[in-house]
Amino acid sequence: MGYLDRVRWNADGLVPAIAQDAASGRVLMLAWMNREALAATVASGYAHYWSRSRRSLWKKGESSGHVQAVREIRLDCDDDAVLLRVEQRGVACHTGREHCFFQRLDDGRWQVSEPILKDPQAIYGHDPS
Amino acid sequence: MGYLDRVRWNADGLVPAIAQDAASGRVLMLAWMNREALAATVASGYAHYWSRSRRSLWKKGESSGHVQAVREIRLDCDDDAVLLRVEQRGVACHTGREHCFFQRLDDGRWQVSEPILKDPQAIYGHDPS
Repeated sequence: MGYLDRVRWNADGLVPAIAQDAASGRVLMLAWMNREALAATVASGYAHYWSRSRRSLWKKGESSGHVQAVREIRLDCDDDAVLLRVEQRGVACHTGREHCFFQRLDDGRWQVSEPILKDPQAIYGHDPS
Repeated sequence: MGYLDRVRWNADGLVPAIAQDAASGRVLMLAWMNREALAATVASGYAHYWSRSRRSLWKKGESSGHVQAVREIRLDCDDDAVLLRVEQRGVACHTGREHCFFQRLDDGRWQVSEPILKDPQAIYGHDPS
């Protein structure tokens, strides 16, 4: 798998991966990938990441249903950051917001700038069907 | 400086920072910030990063002239990734391309998908005036 060897994984075997909405251009989130996550993303066509807190492979949307269908995968000039252009089903953020970058610096304070579109309780309270 | 304390810096005192073109929505690059870089960005209105290779504060464009005027600074839901929406002067990538994510995965290989707009020799061969 030559494309995996080209990536400059960090000391923990990870690279940061940006997910961008392919239609709107919105930057949705930043997560981390190891070799397994990138390979699973390529093989399945759906974004997979490595959860640093749970130390496990994680298919985005596996519990929420808010999967990311991957349209394009890009690597940067230093081979150490990945950009996914995706079709986001539902909302990207576990808080129920469209994307994760909802805190905007304003007058020296981080201000919440995006509404909650889906109640997290409703997202995670039951299995998505 | 409360906003600096809210950021969850990693063990090296860094967070990944995404620069996005405010007009086109294009993701330009991913770099790293420490407290000093974020504070300098806020104070000056121009993107500053931490160079992990040179171990020094780095004003984007300091040698190329390709500065990034910052329009908005955002923090993600986990407080450990930053998104800058910027006006990019010139090109973002040191290779002379518009942005750094110019390698696209295609049939299992990373293919260069963006043209060189400025000769790197011309960018770095002399001081920008």
